[in-house]
Amino acid sequence: MIKRIDHVAVVVENMDDATAFWQDALGLKISHTENIADQESVIAFLPVGGSEVELVEPTTETSGIARYLDKRGPGIHHVCFEVDNLQATLDRLDAQGIELINREPTTGAGGTRVAFVHPRSANGVLVELYERGIATE
Amino acid sequence: MIKRIDHVAVVVENMDDATAFWQDALGLKISHTENIADQESVIAFLPVGGSEVELVEPTTETSGIARYLDKRGPGIHHVCFEVDNLQATLDRLDAQGIELINREPTTGAGGTRVAFVHPRSANGVLVELYERGIATE
Repeated sequence: MIKRIDHVAVVVENMDDATAFWQDALGLKISHTENIADQESVIAFLPVGGSEVELVEPTTETSGIARYLDKRGPGIHHVCFEVDNLQATLDRLDAQGIELINREPTTGAGGTRVAFVHPRSANGVLVELYERGIATE
Repeated sequence: MIKRIDHVAVVVENMDDATAFWQDALGLKISHTENIADQESVIAFLPVGGSEVELVEPTTETSGIARYLDKRGPGIHHVCFEVDNLQATLDRLDAQGIELINREPTTGAGGTRVAFVHPRSANGVLVELYERGIATE
């Protein structure tokens, strides 16, 4: 039901500095970047095995990502797992008293179906759940 | 050269509470647990795809993990990548001015060869590098 780690997202202050480590030094390769307007951030995707590292830089000073960066500094923002049935997973978590940020799938980068579990219910970890395929709504 | 995400390690305050989320609610399964005496911690391993989530609970109040927990609270402690040649990777990173915690492989859980990159050089992320196989020393 939980299939794999889809990605680990890292909040960075400066994308050029970040790619100097993750790409030039460590040896991962950026497959593409996306400017996510409604998240006020740019994301670089670096595939590794069947997963990705995502580097996230805020593009405004007011976005949620910018405020996270101000408060906590750069570092891992969330980990995302692929599930085979997102709504069923959310219903099961909800029934077990797990605090969900999204009780129904919402639309993530590239039109995918995603939802977040609150860190209060996940040992301080912001957990994203992702179902492969494009949202139909 | 960087093959895949080997694991994401999560520091937890209480293993029973943690497994209530990661195993009972989310649906991962603990494959085994290890008491790592020299790290003063117990680790539960939960495979997911070709990777693992590792839940780490300190077993003393003085260990590095316990101090991390006191200072930062529960959450993601590090992310580990499998590499095919650890010493060559460390040499390349060192040559590029990346700050390494271990400039040579050290022995991790189960006798594996691992080394850590300092978060100062990795956007606040504690990066572990791991080479498959048992250390021969």
